[in-house]
Amino acid sequence: MKITELIGKRFKEKPSETKLKSHEFLIRGGYVRSVASGIFVELLPGLRVARNIENIIRNEMNDLGANEVAMPLVTPAQLWRETGRYDVINGELLKFKDRNSHEMLLAMTHEETVTAVARAETSSYREYPFSIYQFGKKFRDEARPRGGQIRAREFTMKDAYSFHTSQESVDEIYEEYAKAYHRIFAQVGIPQVVSVKSDSGMMGGKIAHEYMLLCDDGEDTIITCDKCDYRANREVAESRVVPENPEEEMAALEKIETPNAKTIEEVAHFLKMSPIRMIKTVVYKPVPGDDRVVVVMVRGDREVNEAKLSKVLRAEPEFADDTVFENTGMVPGYASGLGARNVRVIVDKMLTHERNMVTGANEKGIHLCNFNISRDLPNAEIFDVVSVASGDICKQCGGNIKISRGIEVGNIFQLGEKYTKAMGMTYTDENGEIKTPLMGCYGIGIGRLVASVIEARNDERGPIWPVSIAPWPVSLTVIYSKTGDDNNEKISNDLYTDIKNAGIEILFDDRKISAGEKFADIDLLGVPLQLVLSPKTIEMDSVEWKNRATGEKGLVKIKEVLSWTQTWLKNEEAKLKTFE
Amino acid sequence: MKITELIGKRFKEKPSETKLKSHEFLIRGGYVRSVASGIFVELLPGLRVARNIENIIRNEMNDLGANEVAMPLVTPAQLWRETGRYDVINGELLKFKDRNSHEMLLAMTHEETVTAVARAETSSYREYPFSIYQFGKKFRDEARPRGGQIRAREFTMKDAYSFHTSQESVDEIYEEYAKAYHRIFAQVGIPQVVSVKSDSGMMGGKIAHEYMLLCDDGEDTIITCDKCDYRANREVAESRVVPENPEEEMAALEKIETPNAKTIEEVAHFLKMSPIRMIKTVVYKPVPGDDRVVVVMVRGDREVNEAKLSKVLRAEPEFADDTVFENTGMVPGYASGLGARNVRVIVDKMLTHERNMVTGANEKGIHLCNFNISRDLPNAEIFDVVSVASGDICKQCGGNIKISRGIEVGNIFQLGEKYTKAMGMTYTDENGEIKTPLMGCYGIGIGRLVASVIEARNDERGPIWPVSIAPWPVSLTVIYSKTGDDNNEKISNDLYTDIKNAGIEILFDDRKISAGEKFADIDLLGVPLQLVLSPKTIEMDSVEWKNRATGEKGLVKIKEVLSWTQTWLKNEEAKLKTFE
Repeated sequence: MKITELIGKRFKEKPSETKLKSHEFLIRGGYVRSVASGIFVELLPGLRVARNIENIIRNEMNDLGANEVAMPLVTPAQLWRETGRYDVINGELLKFKDRNSHEMLLAMTHEETVTAVARAETSSYREYPFSIYQFGKKFRDEARPRGGQIRAREFTMKDAYSFHTSQESVDEIYEEYAKAYHRIFAQVGIPQVVSVKSDSGMMGGKIAHEYMLLCDDGEDTIITCDKCDYRANREVAESRVVPENPEEEMAALEKIETPNAKTIEEVAHFLKMSPIRMIKTVVYKPVPGDDRVVVVMVRGDREVNEAKLSKVLRAEPEFADDTVFENTGMVPGYASGLGARNVRVIVDKMLTHERNMVTGANEKGIHLCNFNISRDLPNAEIFDVVSVASGDICKQCGGNIKISRGIEVGNIFQLGEKYTKAMGMTYTDENGEIKTPLMGCYGIGIGRLVASVIEARNDERGPIWPVSIAPWPVSLTVIYSKTGDDNNEKISNDLYTDIKNAGIEILFDDRKISAGEKFADIDLLGVPLQLVLSPKTIEMDSVEWKNRATGEKGLVKIKEVLSWTQTWLKNEEAKLKTFE
Repeated sequence: MKITELIGKRFKEKPSETKLKSHEFLIRGGYVRSVASGIFVELLPGLRVARNIENIIRNEMNDLGANEVAMPLVTPAQLWRETGRYDVINGELLKFKDRNSHEMLLAMTHEETVTAVARAETSSYREYPFSIYQFGKKFRDEARPRGGQIRAREFTMKDAYSFHTSQESVDEIYEEYAKAYHRIFAQVGIPQVVSVKSDSGMMGGKIAHEYMLLCDDGEDTIITCDKCDYRANREVAESRVVPENPEEEMAALEKIETPNAKTIEEVAHFLKMSPIRMIKTVVYKPVPGDDRVVVVMVRGDREVNEAKLSKVLRAEPEFADDTVFENTGMVPGYASGLGARNVRVIVDKMLTHERNMVTGANEKGIHLCNFNISRDLPNAEIFDVVSVASGDICKQCGGNIKISRGIEVGNIFQLGEKYTKAMGMTYTDENGEIKTPLMGCYGIGIGRLVASVIEARNDERGPIWPVSIAPWPVSLTVIYSKTGDDNNEKISNDLYTDIKNAGIEILFDDRKISAGEKFADIDLLGVPLQLVLSPKTIEMDSVEWKNRATGEKGLVKIKEVLSWTQTWLKNEEAKLKTFE
């Protein structure tokens, strides 16, 4: 198309509200516009990138034999009551009543809907395994949307769901999706995306992976090893820690006065000891079905990892307020699991090797020295409940743990029977018995992936799109002579028409403005192959081409431009399809 | 794909909840499923038809130079407050608050959003005219959704919007869209769709057309002439009516007792006169800005057309309750504009030629005979405020008016300045002056069009899709010999692979079930070209083909099936693109 037909202003200035490069370029290039916090209009260039990504994903999903469907955004609450999520999820899940007073919600994910469909449409083991997917709108009422399309409220997601009669089948298809995901990320231009073990959170199930684009501006934390391929997100990452003082003799418990010293830092400073010798005691409210207060003890330099703790508790941990301390014998600021009543004590396993630590004495102004878990709290429950830290030792290989930032560009979950059981979905097996199927689910947020590609591929002039998803893989810019007596207009028009008629999406800039402005626009639109016809090139009966990604330039004869372009695009496409 | 990979049950029985053929077949064929009243999941066959239709529309929109965008469903209320529609539209417009207590709505149409975008992105007359369109989700909270996808609550619509600096430009582009619409309907297999003049309703603007598929089960009423091309919907249709008694001498007004006779029928029966000699007086509440009660007088055999009346009143008419009659001197059941106080009297123009009519006397139990508008109510406002009726005379040609049923498959509206003015959208003209642009809008509901094609094209076995939008244009059914000792499996597999690899979407049925069940499925899926390989055809080294639409059958050599199929499809496509 002609650039003059394109609606959407482009500009040089960085918008004040943008922090991420992707957000900046999406606004500056006229790709998207915000109409409310986290709610966007995609203009033509943004929509074209999104649709190109969708087509790449669609091909991969169809190759897996998945059935594409379209599920609604507005969903009856009844479906989410069947799994219990209607009452459990608040805030992000937007609930409302329709005009007939029926309770409805805006789906933030579609496990319930797809399970309702699959439950009605299948019945025999012969139909298994099968997959259903869609490109559907979702709404998550984020309290603080940010980062442009990285964390939007209304967004399009590819969500796929697989159904199985055995764990072996789940594992097999899960692996197929994992491979397809790597092919997808390679084809959209970010082959460097890595999969990391993750927590399945509210999704149910046990095994889950996130696909991460490592990137300093990412909002997620990824734990990697500097030697082996260990990768996990902060919520599930595990490590080994060399005990600081494992060989010490256990000394006798001893009370010491620590007036006004309550926090780890205050006590360590007062005692002139390292925080590593302290024990941090964190108190949580009782969880449903157990009236004991939860006391978690971790090493003083570490934080409780609430994702890990929630798995131990099988409930979301909630910090205790002071009323919770009544009847436990614990004193806020000087609390310890040692000597507390009506409590469940959970000790991080890192502490089991430490000796002669400092903990609260459950008396105001007093701490205890020479506390030893194995001797003093032999019945405590031991779990891994801390976050790993930079410098920890890799459990797999002994290498050093590193902490990186990343953007999550996709995720895959094994869901077990969580949804199928709750919703009474069954099948009849070979022996005529009624069984409950297992499920997996596989998501990619389209807008987020658009933004992520920009985060990975940009320079100061704009995004560097790969040909596979560029809004236009090719551009043609015409520069007129100052006298205006050339026939560049006719030649460029013919060239544009030829390339367009060959089925290549080409952006044609025939505006009579400065060359600089025109080049800036084409770079902001990230066109991979940029053709320029100018009085200078025309003297050589040629067009100049430039590779946006490499800066490489050259001349090609006007007569050969079409076939040369076709070959160039084909080669670039082929590079993106080179998988390991 | 193989039919065994397709999720979605197909069945013979008519579902009890379906009234329309389209709804029945969409359910029976596994095209769509309802998850709540008016809210659907599209399964693969339904989604494929919808997407094929979208692609046809997209090509036509792009040919008009329109910019495709994607606008959000969740929309800030603020945008709709700018035009005043937030407060005016209730019921169908779903409103809610997000978690930060911001007022939001689910867009039922996108004039406000697109105007906000256009307002921000354009500023000079040089950018005009331009068009923006999308395939976007909409939500209309219908009180009584029905007819399956004909009247859904959540649905996908192609909505286009054009912006102009002059009425000539509006007219020109409006005409281009009108032509594109006829090409679209022809390509999806319903060239018989007609455009009818319609009311712009809540949309603003003056000129509007609806595209109607004439169809006995349609929910809309269309007025046509049996001689000329006059077509309009009930809300705007006009006609001529031969006065019943125009030549009579005006007789003197005369009171007559009509005890207990209040309705037109009762009075006509009591007086032994035709209802045509009666005047029907309908009383409405005052409209905003005018405290007079509205009294509408029409001929006794006619109904007030409230769409026409709302244009006269510039407000939605609301029936009066008894309290409204106070201070008017009118008596319910015996009301007349004659002698009423504090009222605005609107007389249908049909009455201006009638003589010596019967009207209420504004006294209980009394009517007036020999009422003559020109003599007795010389100051009444005269407007066309009745609906036309079958047998009326065409205003254009004098032919007879017919009343038909139809389904609205699209509409186009001229919007004037309604949205641009309210939202302060402007441009700078040639002389540097700030002006307000004019707008047009152009809609096609995708799901409704899918259903409409079925209404127009079906037989007792299912839909008859044209090749352009069929979920699969071609099917291959293999019938095995009873002994199972043939090589049909291999031959059909090879044939399937060849056709698929040639880029043709083909549905392959290799199930070992009865031929009857297989043929029923393929017909229910409406496949236009049905290939069958059976022991009988294989003896002749051939495949049997059947044209779903015509029933035509024949044999084609196995070796030639691919090229024969390609030619057949090409010819069918060409037929659909033959426009007048």
